[in-house]
Amino acid sequence: MASSEIDALTQALARLPGLGPRSARRAVLHLLKKREAAMAPLLRALDAVNERLATCCTCGNVDTTDPCSICADPRRDARMLCVVEDVSDLWALDRSRLFPGRFHVLGGRLSALEGVRPEDLTIDALIGRIAAGGIDEVVLAMNATLEGQTTAHYIADRIERFPVRVTQLAHGLPVGGELDYLDEGTLAQALRARRPVV
Amino acid sequence: MASSEIDALTQALARLPGLGPRSARRAVLHLLKKREAAMAPLLRALDAVNERLATCCTCGNVDTTDPCSICADPRRDARMLCVVEDVSDLWALDRSRLFPGRFHVLGGRLSALEGVRPEDLTIDALIGRIAAGGIDEVVLAMNATLEGQTTAHYIADRIERFPVRVTQLAHGLPVGGELDYLDEGTLAQALRARRPVV
Ligand SMILES: [Zn+2]
Ligand SMILES: [Zn+2]
Repeated sequence: MASSEIDALTQALARLPGLGPRSARRAVLHLLKKREAAMAPLLRALDAVNERLATCCTCGNVDTTDPCSICADPRRDARMLCVVEDVSDLWALDRSRLFPGRFHVLGGRLSALEGVRPEDLTIDALIGRIAAGGIDEVVLAMNATLEGQTTAHYIADRIERFPVRVTQLAHGLPVGGELDYLDEGTLAQALRARRPVV
Repeated sequence: MASSEIDALTQALARLPGLGPRSARRAVLHLLKKREAAMAPLLRALDAVNERLATCCTCGNVDTTDPCSICADPRRDARMLCVVEDVSDLWALDRSRLFPGRFHVLGGRLSALEGVRPEDLTIDALIGRIAAGGIDEVVLAMNATLEGQTTAHYIADRIERFPVRVTQLAHGLPVGGELDYLDEGTLAQALRARRPVV
């Protein structure tokens, strides 16, 4: 029944995580019916984000400014650096408002299986930030997966020579759990009970 | 953590039916990370639809052309007209590919409670289409709710004087059920067993 434009919109929405063909259809119908209240704001927001989208050269966060709003925020404690695998992990931790410092996004985790090597991640940039000084504590907030923990150990080894405290999230995390899926209570507990990497 | 633009995008998505704050955040993250594969097509599709969106002056369908693609399709049986409450019902019926005719969208149903009167719906336009001739059967496909059935009876009364067969969907529909939520099997059965309005 729908024109190719409406079909294309439905398909573009259906490909988003958490949406399927059915919910995409309902969303499109909603957009068509609420042109001013729903379609226009979504289009404006998407346009603005697309226009200004940037990856932060400092931390790897995705934002509409570079440096990102976290790196540019003077209220953030520059002495604390939290290393995460992915932007989604950064967002999850930041949402919890439990970590007052800044972040470093690795862009993945080491994986023999998927052929992800240290040079495929932003580990050299991380070393650079730590070597530049001013950082007291590096919190390794990798996922509690085998690959996440391998990555944490690898990084801990690489930064051992710097005068920084290296900690990792307490393993109250469910085994195999992905950071981005945890409730804030679990995240809070894991962060509070963070311990030095041995 | 996010800029106001990214927040605005998250909120615009979170307001769509079937999405909440959490799935909207995941969708936004996906869009940010897959700028070429996800963000660009969505923006293009939304832009195209927004640019050309129109309500069909004939049937009330929402499409990117007026007359809509159904009204403009010569393969559609112009002698059969299916009257629905809402565009979503039209889409649901059309998706099932069971109805070969055209549609008429009322834009709601009569409701004493919500103060919806006949003149608030496109009933006069429907009468006009029937009066213009060429229609053999009018299928009343209102929802199986009290208000839907009240609306069906009201319309059946108004078009009694025309030489058309007036039918309604068989009431195999679950009581209180909304057309848009039914599976195609139920829709098919209801359409096959449609019966004259007494
Ligand atoms: Zn940054
Ligand atoms: Zn039409």
